[in-house]
Amino acid sequence: MYRSHNCGELTTAHINTEVTLAGWVQKSRDKGFMIWVDLRDRYGITQLIFDEERSSKAILEQAKSLGREFVIQVKGTVIERASKNPKMKTGDIEILVSELTVLNQSLTPPFTIEDNTDGGEELRMQFRYLDIRRNPVRDSLIFRHKVTQQVRNYLSSGGFIEVETPYLIKSTPEGARDFVVPSRMNEGQFYALPQSPQTFKQLLMVGGMDKYFQIVKCFRDEDLRADRQPEFTQIDCEMAFVDQEDILNAFEGLTRHLLKEINGVEVDEFPRMTFDEAMQRYGNDKPDIRFGMEFGELNNIAQHKDFNVFNQAELVVGIAVPHGNSYSRKEIDKLVDWVKRPQVGALGMVYARCNEDGSYKSSVDKFYDQEDLAKWAEATGANPGDLICVLSGDTNKVRAQLSALRMELAERLGLRNPKEFAPLWVVDFPLLEWDEDTERYHAMHHPFTSPKPEQIELLKTDPGAVKANAYDLVLNGNEIGGGSIRIHDKATQALMFDYLGFTPEEAKAQFGFLMNAFEYGAPPHGGLAFGLDRLVAILGGQETIRDFIAFPKNNSGRDVMIDAPAPIDDNQLTELSLKLNINS
Amino acid sequence: MYRSHNCGELTTAHINTEVTLAGWVQKSRDKGFMIWVDLRDRYGITQLIFDEERSSKAILEQAKSLGREFVIQVKGTVIERASKNPKMKTGDIEILVSELTVLNQSLTPPFTIEDNTDGGEELRMQFRYLDIRRNPVRDSLIFRHKVTQQVRNYLSSGGFIEVETPYLIKSTPEGARDFVVPSRMNEGQFYALPQSPQTFKQLLMVGGMDKYFQIVKCFRDEDLRADRQPEFTQIDCEMAFVDQEDILNAFEGLTRHLLKEINGVEVDEFPRMTFDEAMQRYGNDKPDIRFGMEFGELNNIAQHKDFNVFNQAELVVGIAVPHGNSYSRKEIDKLVDWVKRPQVGALGMVYARCNEDGSYKSSVDKFYDQEDLAKWAEATGANPGDLICVLSGDTNKVRAQLSALRMELAERLGLRNPKEFAPLWVVDFPLLEWDEDTERYHAMHHPFTSPKPEQIELLKTDPGAVKANAYDLVLNGNEIGGGSIRIHDKATQALMFDYLGFTPEEAKAQFGFLMNAFEYGAPPHGGLAFGLDRLVAILGGQETIRDFIAFPKNNSGRDVMIDAPAPIDDNQLTELSLKLNINS
Repeated sequence: MYRSHNCGELTTAHINTEVTLAGWVQKSRDKGFMIWVDLRDRYGITQLIFDEERSSKAILEQAKSLGREFVIQVKGTVIERASKNPKMKTGDIEILVSELTVLNQSLTPPFTIEDNTDGGEELRMQFRYLDIRRNPVRDSLIFRHKVTQQVRNYLSSGGFIEVETPYLIKSTPEGARDFVVPSRMNEGQFYALPQSPQTFKQLLMVGGMDKYFQIVKCFRDEDLRADRQPEFTQIDCEMAFVDQEDILNAFEGLTRHLLKEINGVEVDEFPRMTFDEAMQRYGNDKPDIRFGMEFGELNNIAQHKDFNVFNQAELVVGIAVPHGNSYSRKEIDKLVDWVKRPQVGALGMVYARCNEDGSYKSSVDKFYDQEDLAKWAEATGANPGDLICVLSGDTNKVRAQLSALRMELAERLGLRNPKEFAPLWVVDFPLLEWDEDTERYHAMHHPFTSPKPEQIELLKTDPGAVKANAYDLVLNGNEIGGGSIRIHDKATQALMFDYLGFTPEEAKAQFGFLMNAFEYGAPPHGGLAFGLDRLVAILGGQETIRDFIAFPKNNSGRDVMIDAPAPIDDNQLTELSLKLNINS
Repeated sequence: MYRSHNCGELTTAHINTEVTLAGWVQKSRDKGFMIWVDLRDRYGITQLIFDEERSSKAILEQAKSLGREFVIQVKGTVIERASKNPKMKTGDIEILVSELTVLNQSLTPPFTIEDNTDGGEELRMQFRYLDIRRNPVRDSLIFRHKVTQQVRNYLSSGGFIEVETPYLIKSTPEGARDFVVPSRMNEGQFYALPQSPQTFKQLLMVGGMDKYFQIVKCFRDEDLRADRQPEFTQIDCEMAFVDQEDILNAFEGLTRHLLKEINGVEVDEFPRMTFDEAMQRYGNDKPDIRFGMEFGELNNIAQHKDFNVFNQAELVVGIAVPHGNSYSRKEIDKLVDWVKRPQVGALGMVYARCNEDGSYKSSVDKFYDQEDLAKWAEATGANPGDLICVLSGDTNKVRAQLSALRMELAERLGLRNPKEFAPLWVVDFPLLEWDEDTERYHAMHHPFTSPKPEQIELLKTDPGAVKANAYDLVLNGNEIGGGSIRIHDKATQALMFDYLGFTPEEAKAQFGFLMNAFEYGAPPHGGLAFGLDRLVAILGGQETIRDFIAFPKNNSGRDVMIDAPAPIDDNQLTELSLKLNINS
């Protein structure tokens, strides 16, 4: 037993108690005749005191030799502090040390172990074990644990069973790229790591397991965008004998439970919005509804004049920026530059100032009079003092551009309060989306998603218009979960594979087991998966997921701490019946 | 909402209630004018009734067309059964059906969905989704869930934090063979799947995380013995600022909690035994102590006569089989054959009958008189009526052989009661074991295990004699967990790598990150990992793990249901900079 107490629990109630503590030297202050050492562990910091009067000379000397991050064990007496620190849990006491053991020394860490460290991202990742000693990272990992415990206990008490599905499965070219695992025992063959346990959870439903969940690692070999990880964690859920309404209610319940237990926030019934409405009102299928700035479409009121940019556009659409009329000309010019950046890609931006006196001043006064601009204000909900920003072009592109502007402005205006939570169901997603590169339809969600039953016929004439029983759960502008009602009969599944360009042979080779299963009494079923990394980050009031992952990889998919991936032995390759095939 | 109730909850309290149920047709009995259908879901079976008097002709006809495993939804009224079935939860009622909807049809399943199915192992695996509908498999999966929930809640309430460690890590040739994952983004390089999160959990300790656990998949590419899986699950635990005693206490607490909550069994303090003692008394480092038949070593009392087989043996050792004197000569001959099977490998077996009158009759009466045999009886604890079985040869081999015989006889004698639980700590494992093939020492546990500090010097003169701070938790003759106190300083770790035949360069290339971490204030730490699959099977009173795994692989590492592993596209190989290298 290395310690009787931890470094976060001693108070005046313990005065005169003999205690043993162990931990790391956070810092020490040496006044010559007196030394204070802050001893840190997972639970807090306790101040140690050594002085000429009350400590032995030997121990005082020993204390002087302690460096930052040394691991020590001390025995001593809890005494009341002369000058108390009300900000610390243990701020009323200190330990008069009678015995000091250095358990391990430490080199000087490459960055400070403080809440605001001087270490850059790359260095922190390389020494992640030191980074984890910092409060923000440690607290994020503990926070993640609390969330998963809440999830597991809530779902378990609701009759859900956590079932482990396999990690060594089969590669399927549909969807993202698989990570594969060569099989030594089956020459020339490969397992794949799951992109999700999708087919297995469906087979569990066929198996009668009825309410399933799993907190599970998933893998995608994609070129990494910022804040994406090749391995990530899902809260994967599936239910049988349910319709969409049942699923939305079940997981709205879970989300509401988390918001209450984790964040202390009570949220009303989650609003719902169709995909089409979300695109129209926010230009985005995961709108942040903590604030307004809804889109106002201006085609009808702006396309009757001689302004050709608008006349030729598929969509003219604007937002009202609250109090935006206070922006200087220079500031507005910067906004225009911002939307013209390649990451956003607008060709330009039209704006109209809404003056306090009810008059308007626009960048296109040549074409639009006060009456026109009043209609713009009405369509965008602009009030006196606001600024109307208008973009135009192809519908999909201009929506994405204006949505980016809306989010950027909200960020600048402080409208994205991380302590406020605005969940939203987006429903009725399209079943298919057209892929320009391959010139065919892809499943928007995945090929197991059920079309709206009444629209199956429409697949033949207008596939792009068919909606699916598919839904996303959006929180503060982030998709935190998504799912669908699945196809559960072989004929519809075969039809879907056909529409997605699979030959019957390909469909059978890849998903024959699932289609076979559908012939043996598959119940109606559906589900949802939460992205745990993102969910935890948002509940924790953060936008980046990296501090909520103990050992994240960088944007090249490398673990810079352990230096992986790495070359392997030739023997290993030979055993796997593989050769490198490198173009150099 | 497909159902108002499930198939396991309706009782006489619900009589006259209108209900909606959904599930599978377990079986139907058609008396012509009356049809009963057993409707099954995850929760039980409810009897449906259709009859000429009270049901419409149409619905009666429809009911006649139902096949086994059809998925149906029914509406109807709960009525009291004429002949009640007290063995069923719902045996007092039945449902008079007013509305029947077939949700999905089913082909005739390839085996019966009954507790005792007619399906063989391979067929059940191929149609695992049907196998899961059977009570024993379904209950095993639910049982597993309950165990993991108990583990998580117990450890969480004890301040343990579940931290997810990465699956895409680095291959290290030490230990078993790794599964590797080619990296597309890092040409010619590979990740490895973890054999355990060992180094990561140690880094979490260096990171101050203090009490860690994780229920986590691990991977070993080994030639599969029966009942081994290439992917398996561990309850992985680690603690800092602890010595061996703290760890044994912590996880004895967890195990005792599981036995109580899951099995309703209260167990006293777990006995402890050194590795040496376990080998001497049971010939086995995971002895089943639910029964006696302890080894009696006979060297001193059997090597003074002219029986050369014994005289030349390193070890002569016997066990007393309770009531074994009742075995016929033929039965004993069969036992001799049993120990001579190649799987056991004994050259022969000597036996002595202990007659009820206190006399003895042995197979070696030529060499040993009654007085000698009385000493054998004393050494093996044999009573009148028992049979003494004696094997001889090289110590390690003969112990393994006699241990196999002991277990086999206990099995036959019904001494291995699955409802009885006898946990045991085996401690003081050797640090190293000699490998005949490579002619060098291997780490018995793993290279991070701490030698007994007082024996470090002995490493130079007699490495095989050095004991480690390593321990196993044994339950009913199975190793359910194992762990050790770890090395936490760079010098000792470097010394260990040296003894294990690593050059300093190799050690640095593979474990440099860990040794670096030890230079930045690594605390003393240690841990333990439970094999979850085995633990759950034993708690569930089973010896085989397969039914406690939702989708197990067969002995060639194949998932016969999804037919994995499988060949992959040439494109995929090219993207991964790989070529097949198959000798055909």
